[in-house]
Amino acid sequence: MTASAERTEHDLLGARTLPGHAYYGIHTLRALENFPISGAPISVYPELIRALACVKQAAAEANAELGLLPEAKRRAIVAACAEIRAGALHEHFVVDVIQGGAGTSTNMNANEVIANRALELMGHQRGDYQHLHPHQDVNLSQSTNDVYPTALKLAAYFGISRLREAMAYLRQAFADRAEAFADVLKMGRTQLQDAVPMTLGQEFGAYAVMLGEDEARLGEASLLITEINLGATAIGTGINTHPDYAHVACRHLARISGVPVSTADNLVEASQDCGSFVQLSGVLKRVAVKLSKTCNDLRLLSSGPRAGLGEINLPTTQAGSSIIPGKVNPVIPEVVNQIAFEVIGNDLTVSFAAEAGQLQHNAFEPIIAHSLFKSITHLRNGCLVLADRCVRGITANREHMRAQVENSIGIVTALTPYIGYEQATELAQDALQTGRSVYKLALAKGLLTREALEEILKPERLTRPRKFVPLR
Amino acid sequence: MTASAERTEHDLLGARTLPGHAYYGIHTLRALENFPISGAPISVYPELIRALACVKQAAAEANAELGLLPEAKRRAIVAACAEIRAGALHEHFVVDVIQGGAGTSTNMNANEVIANRALELMGHQRGDYQHLHPHQDVNLSQSTNDVYPTALKLAAYFGISRLREAMAYLRQAFADRAEAFADVLKMGRTQLQDAVPMTLGQEFGAYAVMLGEDEARLGEASLLITEINLGATAIGTGINTHPDYAHVACRHLARISGVPVSTADNLVEASQDCGSFVQLSGVLKRVAVKLSKTCNDLRLLSSGPRAGLGEINLPTTQAGSSIIPGKVNPVIPEVVNQIAFEVIGNDLTVSFAAEAGQLQHNAFEPIIAHSLFKSITHLRNGCLVLADRCVRGITANREHMRAQVENSIGIVTALTPYIGYEQATELAQDALQTGRSVYKLALAKGLLTREALEEILKPERLTRPRKFVPLR
Amino acid sequence: MTASAERTEHDLLGARTLPGHAYYGIHTLRALENFPISGAPISVYPELIRALACVKQAAAEANAELGLLPEAKRRAIVAACAEIRAGALHEHFVVDVIQGGAGTSTNMNANEVIANRALELMGHQRGDYQHLHPHQDVNLSQSTNDVYPTALKLAAYFGISRLREAMAYLRQAFADRAEAFADVLKMGRTQLQDAVPMTLGQEFGAYAVMLGEDEARLGEASLLITEINLGATAIGTGINTHPDYAHVACRHLARISGVPVSTADNLVEASQDCGSFVQLSGVLKRVAVKLSKTCNDLRLLSSGPRAGLGEINLPTTQAGSSIIPGKVNPVIPEVVNQIAFEVIGNDLTVSFAAEAGQLQHNAFEPIIAHSLFKSITHLRNGCLVLADRCVRGITANREHMRAQVENSIGIVTALTPYIGYEQATELAQDALQTGRSVYKLALAKGLLTREALEEILKPERLTRPRKFVPLR
Amino acid sequence: MTASAERTEHDLLGARTLPGHAYYGIHTLRALENFPISGAPISVYPELIRALACVKQAAAEANAELGLLPEAKRRAIVAACAEIRAGALHEHFVVDVIQGGAGTSTNMNANEVIANRALELMGHQRGDYQHLHPHQDVNLSQSTNDVYPTALKLAAYFGISRLREAMAYLRQAFADRAEAFADVLKMGRTQLQDAVPMTLGQEFGAYAVMLGEDEARLGEASLLITEINLGATAIGTGINTHPDYAHVACRHLARISGVPVSTADNLVEASQDCGSFVQLSGVLKRVAVKLSKTCNDLRLLSSGPRAGLGEINLPTTQAGSSIIPGKVNPVIPEVVNQIAFEVIGNDLTVSFAAEAGQLQHNAFEPIIAHSLFKSITHLRNGCLVLADRCVRGITANREHMRAQVENSIGIVTALTPYIGYEQATELAQDALQTGRSVYKLALAKGLLTREALEEILKPERLTRPRKFVPLR
Repeated sequence: MTASAERTEHDLLGARTLPGHAYYGIHTLRALENFPISGAPISVYPELIRALACVKQAAAEANAELGLLPEAKRRAIVAACAEIRAGALHEHFVVDVIQGGAGTSTNMNANEVIANRALELMGHQRGDYQHLHPHQDVNLSQSTNDVYPTALKLAAYFGISRLREAMAYLRQAFADRAEAFADVLKMGRTQLQDAVPMTLGQEFGAYAVMLGEDEARLGEASLLITEINLGATAIGTGINTHPDYAHVACRHLARISGVPVSTADNLVEASQDCGSFVQLSGVLKRVAVKLSKTCNDLRLLSSGPRAGLGEINLPTTQAGSSIIPGKVNPVIPEVVNQIAFEVIGNDLTVSFAAEAGQLQHNAFEPIIAHSLFKSITHLRNGCLVLADRCVRGITANREHMRAQVENSIGIVTALTPYIGYEQATELAQDALQTGRSVYKLALAKGLLTREALEEILKPERLTRPRKFVPLR
Repeated sequence: MTASAERTEHDLLGARTLPGHAYYGIHTLRALENFPISGAPISVYPELIRALACVKQAAAEANAELGLLPEAKRRAIVAACAEIRAGALHEHFVVDVIQGGAGTSTNMNANEVIANRALELMGHQRGDYQHLHPHQDVNLSQSTNDVYPTALKLAAYFGISRLREAMAYLRQAFADRAEAFADVLKMGRTQLQDAVPMTLGQEFGAYAVMLGEDEARLGEASLLITEINLGATAIGTGINTHPDYAHVACRHLARISGVPVSTADNLVEASQDCGSFVQLSGVLKRVAVKLSKTCNDLRLLSSGPRAGLGEINLPTTQAGSSIIPGKVNPVIPEVVNQIAFEVIGNDLTVSFAAEAGQLQHNAFEPIIAHSLFKSITHLRNGCLVLADRCVRGITANREHMRAQVENSIGIVTALTPYIGYEQATELAQDALQTGRSVYKLALAKGLLTREALEEILKPERLTRPRKFVPLR
Repeated sequence: MTASAERTEHDLLGARTLPGHAYYGIHTLRALENFPISGAPISVYPELIRALACVKQAAAEANAELGLLPEAKRRAIVAACAEIRAGALHEHFVVDVIQGGAGTSTNMNANEVIANRALELMGHQRGDYQHLHPHQDVNLSQSTNDVYPTALKLAAYFGISRLREAMAYLRQAFADRAEAFADVLKMGRTQLQDAVPMTLGQEFGAYAVMLGEDEARLGEASLLITEINLGATAIGTGINTHPDYAHVACRHLARISGVPVSTADNLVEASQDCGSFVQLSGVLKRVAVKLSKTCNDLRLLSSGPRAGLGEINLPTTQAGSSIIPGKVNPVIPEVVNQIAFEVIGNDLTVSFAAEAGQLQHNAFEPIIAHSLFKSITHLRNGCLVLADRCVRGITANREHMRAQVENSIGIVTALTPYIGYEQATELAQDALQTGRSVYKLALAKGLLTREALEEILKPERLTRPRKFVPLR
Repeated sequence: MTASAERTEHDLLGARTLPGHAYYGIHTLRALENFPISGAPISVYPELIRALACVKQAAAEANAELGLLPEAKRRAIVAACAEIRAGALHEHFVVDVIQGGAGTSTNMNANEVIANRALELMGHQRGDYQHLHPHQDVNLSQSTNDVYPTALKLAAYFGISRLREAMAYLRQAFADRAEAFADVLKMGRTQLQDAVPMTLGQEFGAYAVMLGEDEARLGEASLLITEINLGATAIGTGINTHPDYAHVACRHLARISGVPVSTADNLVEASQDCGSFVQLSGVLKRVAVKLSKTCNDLRLLSSGPRAGLGEINLPTTQAGSSIIPGKVNPVIPEVVNQIAFEVIGNDLTVSFAAEAGQLQHNAFEPIIAHSLFKSITHLRNGCLVLADRCVRGITANREHMRAQVENSIGIVTALTPYIGYEQATELAQDALQTGRSVYKLALAKGLLTREALEEILKPERLTRPRKFVPLR
C-alpha cells in the first residue's frame, strides 16, 4: 500500500485535512486533539485492538447474512479485520487510553481504520467513503454502546487466559519447591510468634494451592464477562437492528474469537451494567492481595542474612545497594508487591467509574478498561518474573530451621493432651525464663517419661493429626 | 439460674475476681480491658454468636464420637450451645468488635460462657473448671485459628441469606413498577444527553434484572465461604486432633447449622487464606456500586419538581428542609447511597486486613468480620427501606415524558437507515437550531413521506429491533 | 421535669402522636421510621450533640442581637443549649448515624429537643409550639445546609483536639523508651535485610518524631475546618438572613465554643465544598498509615520468642492462644493495626461521599460525619491503649542485638571509604560464604590494620556521620 | 559523541556485555532484565530525571567542598548533570517505572549514565571506571535511600508547580464565565430538588473559588515535601558521610534546583517516613474529588438538549455518537472525571505502599513515585483541556432559567419570614398540586399584597441576605 496524498474529511464541526498515511479519519483526529492526557494510545493493549476487529467482523458477517450488507463490502471489511486480528495496522489505533465519550472515539477509530483499509482492498482511495462508509457500513447495526463493552469483554477474556497461564506457571514453581522441601522441618508462626512445627514443604505447598484457587476464581469471573450486549445499540432497545441481528452477530463473534460469548437476556440492563467488570476487578484484587501476602512471606522468611529469620535464600538477581557492599535484596518479591498495590488502586478506580454510570449507559468505561488491562498485564508479568527469577531458585537453610524446632517452646502444645493446658502453660513459661528446652524441662519435672516424650515429639507426628488419649 | 457469688480465676498473668453474674471468665475480662476501642460488643452480630455455638457444639459432638469427650460433658456443652443458638446468653459475649489477637478473645469468650453455662447445667458452680474446662473440654481439638474463621464463615452465610431475601424483596418492588410502567414512553439517555426512546417499564425492569444478577453472584460467593478449616487447629497441620476429627466435626456442623460446609483439601492453605472473604466483600461492593447507581438514577429522574427532569415522583416520607417550606427530598435513595459508600469503604478495610496476613495465619480477621457484618446488615436494611418507603410508591409523569419524546431530536436515529448518517446529522442540527421537531423538518425537507415517517416513528417500533431495508 | 402526657404534632404528611417523655418531635419521629439502618443514634458522638447546641445558641444570640428574636425566647433557647452542652438530654438525639436528607433530620432533632426544653423552661408544655417554634425560632436565620456542616466541623475540631492529646501521650511513651534504649546497639534493616548499625534509641526516637509530625499535620488540618458557612442558609446566598447575621453568629459561636471559627469568604462555595473534610480524612489516613507501620515494626521486632527477630519484648496483656500454652501475642499492636485499616476504609467512604455532592450542596454529609467521627474516636482509643498497655512496658534484649552487630556483614559499609566498593563487596561475599566476621576477614586479608579497624568500627562512630579521607 | 564499541562490566553476579551506545551500565542492565513489568521507562517523567541530576550535582559539589572529591571529577560530574538537567540523555534512563529494590535501580541508572558521560567529558571511554566510578565518585556520600526520596520530592515539587499553574488557568476560565453570567438568574438546587434562586455567576464563581482553595492546599502540601533526608545514607545514621555533608549538600541542592529544600531534623525518621507523600497524594485526591464534582455539575447542567436541565451549553468538540446523528456529548468533563477516578485509585496505591514500609526504610517508593507522577501529570493535562476545550466556550440559556425561577415553588422560602413556615408549607403544596405560581397563589389567598410580593421577590433580593422584620 503506497502512501496516499493528503485528504479532507468532514464532520458536524467542519472539514479537516488528514495526513496521507493515516488510516484513521476525522473523528479520530478530533479525539486526538480532545484527549492529550496520558500519551499512551489504545494500541498499547493489542488484545483490545484484536477484540475490536473480531466484533466488527462479526457484525459485518451478521449484516450480510441478514441481507443488510452487500457481499463486496462484507468481503472487504472481513479482510481488513483479519489483518488487524493478525497484528497489522495497530499503530493506527491512536486515541488516548484515557478518553471521554464512553468509548465512542475508540469505536470511531476502529470504524475508520477498517473502512479505509477495506476501501484500499476494494481498489479505492482512503477517504472515498461513498464506496464504503465508516458509520453506515462498518458500524452498521451497531453503536459504541454495544460494540465497545463487547470488545472490552473479549479483550479482558483474552488477557485473563494469558494471566491464568502465568499463574499456573508460578503455581508449578511453588509446587516444585514444596516437593523439594517436603522433609524440611521448621516452626510455623501465627501473629509472628512461634507456634507449632510444620514442614517447609507444607508452607510452599500452601502457596501453590492458593494460586490454584485464584486461577479457578478468575476462570469463573471470566465467564461472567462472556455475556455481551451486542445488538443493544444505543440504550439496549436494539433500535436500528434487525430482530435477528443480536443472535446472529453473537454466533459469528463466538466463532471468530473462540470465546463462548452469549447474548444477555435483557439488553437494556446489560447496556448500563458494569457489574461484571467490578466483579472481575474484585477478583483481580483478590489475586493481588494474596500474591502480595505471599511475597511478604518470602521477604520475611529470607530476611537476614544474619539478623533475620534466615530460613530460605532467594536467588541473587542484582546488587542490592549503592552504599552497602554485598547487600542483596528481595527485589523480585518487592516488584510483585508493588504490582499488587497498583492493582488494588486500579480496582478502586473501577469501582468509582462503575458507580458513576448514569441511566442507560456508563460513560466511564474507558478508564475501567484501562484499569483492568493494566492490572491483567502487570499481574501476568509479575507472575512470570516471580517464577523465573525468584521461586525456582529458592534454597532452604535446613539446619537452622531444625535447630529452632528443637529449641522451641511451641512444641509444648503436643504435650497438652497429656499434661493439661495449665501445666503446659507453666512448663512453657519455665522454658522461656530459663532458656531450657521443653523436652529437658518436662523430663526434669517428671511430667512424662523419656519414651513418651520421644514418641510425642517425633517430627512426623507433630506436623499432622494423630490419635491420642486425652488427659482425664 | 441464680446469681453466684464473686469468683476468682487465674491465667498466666495471675488471678482476677469475676462478678458473680458473669458467664464469661478471666480471658474475656482481660480482653475487655485490653480493647476499649469501639464500645460495641460482638453480640451486636447475633449471627456470629449463633455461629460460634454451632461450631462449639459440632466440636463437642465430634470429640464424643471419637471417644475424646465423656458423654456427660458432651450433653452439657450441647445443651448450653443449644440455648445460645436459640438466642440466650448473648449479652455475655462482651468483647469489643475491634480486638487484637486474631479472634482469640472471641473464642475464649465463647469457651468460657459455654463452659460456665454447661457447669450450671451439670449442677456445678460457675468457675468450677475441674468439672468442665473452657480449654480442655469446650475447646478440645480446636484452636482459635480454625474455630474463629469457621464461625465467621457461618455467620456471613447466615447474613448473606437474609440479605438476598431483602434484595429479592426489592427486586420484586422494581418488577412491579416495571409492569405498571410498561406502556410509558420516554427518552432514554446516555452521557446525560437525550438518546433514543424507551419505556419507563424497560428502565425499571433493568433495575430488577440487575438485582437478580447480584443475588445470583452473592449466592455463588456465599458458596465460597462454605469451605472451612475446622480441624486445622493452630496452623493447619491439625496438631492435637484425631485424624478423623476434621471430617466428623464438619459433618456435625453441617447438620447443626444447616449450612453445606465442607472441609478444605489443604488445611495449611485454608488457615492462612482470606481470599474468600476478600471475594465476598468484593461482591458486596459490586452490589453496593450498582445499588448506588440505581439510587442516583432515582434521584435524577425525580429531580424537580419544576426545574428538574421530573419524570417520576418518589413518595414523600418526611419534610425535606428546615428552611424551604414544602421541599421534599429523596431521602431514602440518599440513605442507600450512603450505605453503599460505607460498604465500599468496608471492602477496602477487608483488603488491607487480608493483605496484612503473615505466614500461617491472619491476625486481622476480627476487623474483616466487623467490616463484612456491617456491610451485610446495612445493605439488608437499606434494601428493605428502599423497597417499602420508596420504590413501591413511585409514580410516573406520563404526559411530560411523552411530550419529550415527540419533541426529541434523538428520534432522528430511526431515520438513519433511510436517509443516511450524514443527512440525519444535518437534520438533527437543523432541529436543534430552529427548535422544530424532527418529524416536521423531515417532512418539510421532503426526505420521507408522511406515511413513511409515521410508520418509522411508531412508539412500539422505536423501543425494540425491527426489520428494515437500509439505504443504498 | 415531669413526664408530659402524649401529644400530637403535625407535618406535611399529617398528624402523629409523640410519647410524653419525648423531647424530640414529629420530624424526628419520621426520621426514626425512615432510617432503621445501623441502630446507632447520633448521640454516640457526644461532641456532635454539644456542637449542635453551640450552633443553635450562637444563632439565637445573633438573632436577638439583630432584633429578630425576643429576649424571652433567646433566654430559653440559650438555657436549653447550655444544658445540652453540659451533657444533658443527649438521649433525645435519636436519629440514626446513617441517615438520608443531608443532615436535615439531625438539625430537626436538635431544633425539636431545644424547642421543647425551652418551652418547659418558659413554663409551657412540650409541643406548644405557638410559644416557641422549632423552625421559626430555634432554626431562625438557619438552614440544615449551614447549621449541619458547621456543627460537624466543630465536633471534628473537638475530637481532633482530644486525638492530638492522645497522640502526644503515645509520643511521650515512645520518647521515654528512646531515652531508655539510647545506648542499645543493633542492626538497622532496609528491605528486611541487615543494613548498618544504629541504636534502638534511634529507632524508638523515630517513632516519637513521626507522631510529633502527625500531630502538627492534624493541627493544620483542624484549622481548615474552622472556616464555616453559618449564614449561608440553603445554598449560600444567605436567603432569609439579615446582612449582618453571618458575622454576628460567627462571633458568638467562637465565644461559646472556644473554637476560632471564621466565616468563609464565599458562602456559595463553602456550602457545597467538602474539601476540608476530604483533607482532614486524608490526614487521619496518614496518621493511620504510619501508626500501622509502627505497629508492624513492633510486632516484627518482638517476633519469637526463639524463631523470630527477638529484639524487644512487648508486655504480656493476655494469654495468646487457646491451644498453644504460654503463647503470648502482640495483641495491642494488632488492634491498632485494625483500627488503622478501618480508618483507611473510612477515608474512602468520605471520598466517595464528597465526590457525590451535586450542585449547591452535598447530601451525603451524614456518612462523612459518621466516618470521620469513627476514625477520630478509634484512633484516640488506640493511641491510649498502645501507650499504656504496650509501649511503656517494652524491654530490650541487649546482648542479642549487640551480638548481631558484631557478627554482621553490613558493617563492611564502614570500610568502603578505605578499601573501595568492589573490594568491600568481595569481602562481604567471603564473610557470607565462610560465616566468618568482617573484622577477622579484613584483618586476615591484610586490608586494614587492627588499629584502623577498631577505630572505624567503634559503635559510636557507626551510628552517625564522621570525617574520613576517602580512598583514592 | 561517537558510539563506542561493546564493553564488558562486572558486578557481584559476574560479567556482562553492554552495547556500545549505552550510557548506562551493568546494574541498569540487570534491572532491565529483572523488571519487564509496564514497559514504560522512568524517562516518561522528565522531571524525575532532572531531579536526579540536581541531586547528583549537589552531592558532587558538596563532596568537593568538603575535600572528598577532586576538582576534575567534580567538574565532569557537574557538566554531565547540567546536560541532563537541560534535557539531554534522558533516553538512557531506561529502568521500568515499576521496579523492586526501593529505587536502587533508578539511582544506579543515574550513577552510571552520569559516570559514563563524565568519563567522556574527561576524555575517557565509557566503562573506564578507574577514572571515575559510578559508586565511589558519583554516588559518594550517598545511598539510594537518601538520593531517591530526595529526587522524588524535587520531581513532585516541580510537577506540583506546573499543576498549580494549570489549575490557575482553569480557575481563570471559570472566573471569566462567572463574570459573564453575573446577571443570569436561575434556580439553585440541593439534593437535586429545586431550592431557592441564585445567579449562574454565583454558581461558576464557586467553581473558581474551589480551585483557588485547592491551589493553596497543594501549595502547602508541596512545602511538606521540601524537607529532605539527603545525607541520611542507608538508614538515617549518616554512615559514610562527613558531619557537614548533609547541610552543605542541601545548600547546593537548593541553589541548583531552585526549590527551598531543608534537611530534616531527624534523619532516621525522615528515611522511613512516607507521610508527606501520603499527605500530598491525599491533597491530590482532594483536588480530584472536587474537580470530578465540578464536572458532574457541568454535565448535569448541560443535560438535554430537550429532555434535560438544559441550563448551559458546552462547546461541541467532536461528534458524540456512532449511531445517533447530531448527538453531542460532554466528552471533556467526562475525561476529567476519569482522570479523577484514576487519581483516587493512585492515592490508594500510595497508601498501601506507604503502610507496607518496614523498619528503617520503605522499599515501595517506586510505586509511590509512579502513582504520584501519574496523578500530577494527568490532572494537569485535564485542567488545561477542561479550560480550553470546555469552560471557555460555555454559554447560558438565560430565558429558560429565568422562566424556571418565576415558575418555581422554592421562592416561597422568601415569604416565610412574613407568613410563617406552616402557612408557607401549605402554599407550596397548593402550588405543586395546582401547577400555579407561588406569586399568584399568595396573591389570590390574600397572604401578602402585590407590592409586598414584588418587593420580596425581586431577583436581586433573593440571591443575597437582606433585612426583614420577622413574623410574630
